[in-house]
Amino acid sequence: MEATPGIKKIREVRALCDRSSVRRKAGLFVTEGERICNEIPGEDLEAVYMSSGYRKTHPGERCDYLMKDADFARLADTRHPQGILAVVKQKHYELKDLTGGSLYIILETIQDPGNLGTIIRTAEAAGVSAVIMNKGCVDIYSPKVVRSTMGSIFRVPFIYSDDLTGTIRQLKEDGIVIYAADLSGTDMYETAFSERKAYVIGNEANGVSSDMISLADRIVKIPMEGQVDSLNAAVSAAVLMYRR
Amino acid sequence: MEATPGIKKIREVRALCDRSSVRRKAGLFVTEGERICNEIPGEDLEAVYMSSGYRKTHPGERCDYLMKDADFARLADTRHPQGILAVVKQKHYELKDLTGGSLYIILETIQDPGNLGTIIRTAEAAGVSAVIMNKGCVDIYSPKVVRSTMGSIFRVPFIYSDDLTGTIRQLKEDGIVIYAADLSGTDMYETAFSERKAYVIGNEANGVSSDMISLADRIVKIPMEGQVDSLNAAVSAAVLMYRR
Repeated sequence: MEATPGIKKIREVRALCDRSSVRRKAGLFVTEGERICNEIPGEDLEAVYMSSGYRKTHPGERCDYLMKDADFARLADTRHPQGILAVVKQKHYELKDLTGGSLYIILETIQDPGNLGTIIRTAEAAGVSAVIMNKGCVDIYSPKVVRSTMGSIFRVPFIYSDDLTGTIRQLKEDGIVIYAADLSGTDMYETAFSERKAYVIGNEANGVSSDMISLADRIVKIPMEGQVDSLNAAVSAAVLMYRR
Repeated sequence: MEATPGIKKIREVRALCDRSSVRRKAGLFVTEGERICNEIPGEDLEAVYMSSGYRKTHPGERCDYLMKDADFARLADTRHPQGILAVVKQKHYELKDLTGGSLYIILETIQDPGNLGTIIRTAEAAGVSAVIMNKGCVDIYSPKVVRSTMGSIFRVPFIYSDDLTGTIRQLKEDGIVIYAADLSGTDMYETAFSERKAYVIGNEANGVSSDMISLADRIVKIPMEGQVDSLNAAVSAAVLMYRR
């Protein structure tokens, strides 16, 4: 049966929510809410915490730790918690296992958790083989990113690269054509995209760095009318991923 | 010269930030931050509030009310305010002045302020003639929506329709073909879109309503792989707006 979590357990969960260093060291992360918790692959599930209110309406489900509703609300990361959260094992992918695909997204220093989560969600929908991030990107295991992925985090392979230049070289050797999204590029409507490709999406404020621009095979521009000089990063990624 | 705002002025600004009914009655809204404040058309600008710190580095600019940095921080809506906010006149557009265009976006009960703001920003970039919303959409003048538009709110015409069915009928009479985004539709890659069109984007949780589905000329599906059964609303809107 389910146990009542002690203060030590509660503090552990809280630290996993709040600190990426704690998450990394433990190899764990936390996610919250009925829908996403139901999408966790069984082998990745470390522990399930429920509020007693939620437990009453979900008696048959796995529950490792049961808490009073008020205690659960204090632990939860969201303002109106549904009453379920899970501690989940992190996944680690290797680039060598992800080659051979035909569509990749490369993210350079994406800072907004909602943007990163939305990109992961869109990447699954668009059939992306892997999402590659530099170390400057926000932690994919932060609670807000995980929630914004709507469960796609459990299914889209991703890599944090220490050496994005090296990673891109490996993709190129595998035959992937690298397209960097930048205003200096060719109009995407006039670009004949390769069958096998990767799109580089830059930081929200600064765009793709000059290093990445020089490394790319082609520079591609999403045309913009009016006085707009940039799009939201998740929007740019989506428009390119869905370009055929 | 600039005045120090009294408690009454401060409360007015705070109420304009917090309450859509106050905004509607006054015909005003508030926006914050250097970049967006610089994009306000002169004739729409009602008053500028600055912190003394910001004022020091921007001595030549219009400033109606000057505040101590700490007072400004309390008034501001953002966590790390830059030190400038503006009270701006609302704009009111009429459908009859917006006909004759070739691309429209119709939003049904979009609830997330970031989504609405991002859609307005993308709409300007994609050359949309007008954004049409039902009354169930979040208030476009709420501070978070305004910020997310990155200034496009001053340039993209929009309408809140009391009677979305009637508005759509008017668009149809003008020759606009209505495409509703829904999983039940035809793959967008297999759809030959009309030259003059409107896309209907539904609520984040429930999608396009059955009423709107029956009213649309065509139903169009953004294809999704994996286990994804919906995209973020701003992403769906962007993918369709940029589809040619």
